[in-house]
Order: sequence, then C-alpha cells, then structure tokens
Amino acid sequence: MTIRIGIIGYGNLGRGAESALREAPDMELAAVFTRRDPRKISILTKGVPVLPYADSSKMQGEIDVMLLCGGSATDLPVMTPEIAAQFHVVDSFDNHTNIPAHFAAVDAAAKQAGKLAVISVGWDPGLFSLNRLYANAVLPQGADYTFWGKGVSQGHSDAIRHIPGVLDGRQYTVPIEAAVERVRRGENPVLTTREKHTRECFVVAEEGADLDSLAHTIKTMPNYFADYDTTITFISREEMERDHGSLPHGGSVIRSGRTGWDARTTQTIEYRLTLGSNPEFTSSILVAAARAAFRLAEQGQSGCKTMFDLPPASLSPLSPGELRATML
Amino acid sequence: MTIRIGIIGYGNLGRGAESALREAPDMELAAVFTRRDPRKISILTKGVPVLPYADSSKMQGEIDVMLLCGGSATDLPVMTPEIAAQFHVVDSFDNHTNIPAHFAAVDAAAKQAGKLAVISVGWDPGLFSLNRLYANAVLPQGADYTFWGKGVSQGHSDAIRHIPGVLDGRQYTVPIEAAVERVRRGENPVLTTREKHTRECFVVAEEGADLDSLAHTIKTMPNYFADYDTTITFISREEMERDHGSLPHGGSVIRSGRTGWDARTTQTIEYRLTLGSNPEFTSSILVAAARAAFRLAEQGQSGCKTMFDLPPASLSPLSPGELRATML
Repeated sequence: MTIRIGIIGYGNLGRGAESALREAPDMELAAVFTRRDPRKISILTKGVPVLPYADSSKMQGEIDVMLLCGGSATDLPVMTPEIAAQFHVVDSFDNHTNIPAHFAAVDAAAKQAGKLAVISVGWDPGLFSLNRLYANAVLPQGADYTFWGKGVSQGHSDAIRHIPGVLDGRQYTVPIEAAVERVRRGENPVLTTREKHTRECFVVAEEGADLDSLAHTIKTMPNYFADYDTTITFISREEMERDHGSLPHGGSVIRSGRTGWDARTTQTIEYRLTLGSNPEFTSSILVAAARAAFRLAEQGQSGCKTMFDLPPASLSPLSPGELRATML
Repeated sequence: MTIRIGIIGYGNLGRGAESALREAPDMELAAVFTRRDPRKISILTKGVPVLPYADSSKMQGEIDVMLLCGGSATDLPVMTPEIAAQFHVVDSFDNHTNIPAHFAAVDAAAKQAGKLAVISVGWDPGLFSLNRLYANAVLPQGADYTFWGKGVSQGHSDAIRHIPGVLDGRQYTVPIEAAVERVRRGENPVLTTREKHTRECFVVAEEGADLDSLAHTIKTMPNYFADYDTTITFISREEMERDHGSLPHGGSVIRSGRTGWDARTTQTIEYRLTLGSNPEFTSSILVAAARAAFRLAEQGQSGCKTMFDLPPASLSPLSPGELRATML
C-alpha cells in the first residue's frame, strides 16, 4: 500500500520533500498546499495538484500524512496543531526552547482527533538529538559537544540583511578545528562560545555606505555576533550570486565519556554531517519520519511523538527481516 | 523501581557490564553466574553473589534482565534461547551471517515463555547498524562504507597465536586514511578489501623459530591476512605486556548520498567511534539495552528484538519529558 503524502508550504523545504518523495518506493505525493496563489506555483511532479491551504481539510481521506514545511517562528506553532486535528503530520519545529510547549499543544490536538504527529524532525533537532540520546545512554559519565558548520545560518544572514545600508548578506558558522580536535582527543575541555565557532559574513552594501560603520554594527550585534570572532567581507551582488547561492551546512555531535571500574578509559562517539544542502537533507528526514508516523498510526497510536519515540526500523522501507539480514 | 540485573559470564564483557551498572541510577547488579568454579571468581561489587550457571533458573523472581556475556561462536547460540525461556535477556551475538537463525531460535523460546530478548547489541552489530539504518532511510540514494580500527581484532590475534612457533600475538586492524578521506569527500569510490584496511601484527616467537617462515605463514593465511597488506613486527614478551595490554577499537560508518530533483547534491553522514576499551564500551551498550528490554516487557511485549526495534527513548534513564527538554 502506497502512503499518500501532502506537502504544506512550497519553499526550500517543500521542494526538498518533493524530490525526496521520488526516492521513496512506498510513498507518493498527493497534493501541495500553499498560502500563496496556487496558480503562481509550478511544482516539478507531473499531475499533482497545487491547492490553497484553506482547502486542505477537504482532502481528508485522500492524504495519509501531511509534511508541514513552514517556518518555526510563526507558521508551525499555529499550523501543526491545526492540521494535526485532521491528518497525521510531521513538522520540523526547531526552536529548542519552545519544544515542550509546542509538544503539549500538538499532543492535545492530535490525541483528540486520534491522529499521530511527529514534531521537531530534522538534524538539529532530529538526528543530532538522537545521537545525544544514544551517546548519553551508553556513556552516562561524560560531556557533550555540538559544533555547527561550516554552513549558512539563515537567522544570522537575516539579521545582517535587516541592517540599513545592507542589500544582501550571507553568514557562515564555522567550527574552530582546534576545539573540535581537543574534544575528539577526549580532553573534555570547557569551551566558551568564542572558542567553539567563528562567524564569517559576506555583505553586499549600498553604494556609498560607510563600510567601517556597517562592520562595527554587525560585529557588536548582541546575541548574534558580539560573543564571536566575526569576519566581514564586502562583496558585489554578482559575487554573492556566483559564490553564495547554495545552502550548505553540517556539524558534529561528540560525546566523550569514561568507562571502567575506576572510570579511567576514554571512549568517544562522534556523529558528523557534511551537507551540500540543508533544506534538501532536512526534508529527506521529514519523508522518512512520515513513513514512521503512518506505521505507528496504523498500529493504533496517536498523539505527539518525536524521533526519540520512533523505533528505528519504522523509518525504513525495508521489512524487519530485511533490515536484520542486510544492515545489522 | 530498580531493575535487577544478572550477569552470565565474567570475562572482559561481564566485568565491563559490572562497571557500567554502577553508572545506572535505575539498575542494580543482583548476581553473577559462571560456568567456572564460583569460589575462584572474585567480583568487584560488594555483597553480590557469584553462583553456578546451572543455578540461574533458581533465581527467577530475583532478577529482571540477564546480560549474556558469553562468546558468539559457541556460547550464545545455546545460552540465549535457553535463558530467554526463563528471563528477559540481552546478548551481543555478533556473527552477522548467522543473525537471522539466531533471531528465529531466540524469538521462539522467548515468545513461548512470554519473555523479551534483545540480541546483537553492541557497536557492530549495534550502534553501527543503527547508523546504517538511519542513514539509508534518510538518503536512499547512496553508498555505505564501514571502516574498523585502529583496534585489536581478537579473531585475527587468535589466528596468529595458533601458529606453531608463536607464543603470543596481537593484531591491529587499521583503516587506510586515504580511503576514508575519499569517502568523506563524497566520491563514492569502489574499494577493494586491500584498499580499505591494513593489518599490523605484533608477534612473540619461540626462541630459535624461523621468523621469515612465520611471517610468510601469517601473510598468506587465507581469509585472515592474504587479502590485506600485512606488516609483522617481532617483539619480546615484555614488550607485548608493556605496549599491547589494552583492547582499543573503533571505526566509522559513512554513508554518502545524493538529494535533489536531479540528484546533484552530495550529503555525507559519518558516525565514528574511538574506543579505549572495546569490551567496556560494548557492555555499556548491553546495560542500556537491558533498560529498554525491561520497559518493553513491562508494556507487555515479548519475543526477540534488536536495537532496530527499540524506541531510542527506551534506552535512557530520563523520562520522555526530560529528554525533550534537555536533548532534543
């Protein structure tokens, strides 16, 4: 039986999900929903309708799982509970601090409707979180480290773009390799914010802008740049388009722990992602989680889940026996 | 409620499990079982009995989960079904080819008794397998690579020790860094056995032994060394004890895949272990899996499982809410 998928939101994440669905032998794209004018959106999959967001409720019975490809700031806090009252859903809610509140809201809506929701799917939160959990369960005595990058931070890029005098900006978060190496060696160092990452900014300024002043404004911006060593390179619009068009990202989760009766043995677990495209990778995880959501719902489960609750086998198109024979 | 654990077998793995249990706030060691003379075994935990293997059945009601710390060649194929008919069990069966048969035998015994068994727990099979599964679910188009080491291979060390003229031997499996780097870069190379690992042997020979002949015998041994570039260093008994007493290991699982409508984006997932002690790490995983086994059994589940079937949260002593708040 083919799992019928709806995509809500056709930005980078929605387009990534559309591509990822092509590689899923047991799933098919049933419809794309948008809050923009559907006539102005052209998707890549032939024969699949683009419909107004408001019409999604009319598609009950036609769609098994909805992939919610909106943003975490304003879209998902409203959208996920709303849609989870009608469909099984998967979202990528990534505001770590607000996850408990989002979980509670989605859980209430999904339980009441007998639907299953999986929230905060992606790589951080998501695969990175899973690795933190497994590593802590196996090495209870130890320390966790997360390094991000090298990759584009959309939030920091937006912060630059909002400065008067800036036409465009791109910010790369860069892990400091010397710090990563100390962690890998099992030194369990105490690292400040500044010792873990640097921030590299590429900025297109308005003609005649005071570049020194712009650079100062960026470097001293609280929360975003003030706590980091930040470098700023002014470039042309052409250079921005030519050299900074993709959205690479990645990073590492490392746990270094101790085992043995006297806790003298060092053991290190590292999980590392090197991503050519952050949204394409994140949406590939959403698609795998949609499979798990569908299967858990078929078993009669409902309410809100995270990747912590999904049996690993439920993410794979292979049967349990095939998995044991080929991947164990 | 404290989970009461029994350990069967008090070799490197059993001793590692004993230490790991000290770090588990929700578990306690109830008894150690051995097929040797219990009076000759002195364990580290105060006040815990060492009992004959044959008496294990008398401890039903006193022990919640048995950790089976025997070998995969001859112990576990018999022991796991036998004990799974009386207790919830966790084993580290690591003969990949025979996993389906072992699973079937354990599943039948456990189901009939209403017990829950988790087999093939460790890092390969185990954490490496989980990472193969997750990476394949997320990146269905791609290639998998597993590199082992640098670490001691017990099987290869044993093979050396069985050669006439050899007093002791230690074999390290060493990944070829140039190959690892090609995989990390997303080249998806086709690699022969010889291109992935070298084998480094340290050998204590009998006095007067023909060292050239011994080296030739090792290097040409089919299955073990013939397909590899093997280096042999003859050392003294003192050097063996001084420099080769620990059991380090580790390795990487890497999947390099493609995403996007035209499958042009390279995405790479790497999971890497650097282990000061292979048996201490493996037994730490057994202890976490025992927690999961107990919880699944409490929910009424029975039969044979692998780490593929365990919801990640079930391995952690933290509650689902604590996990979401601290690790997601």
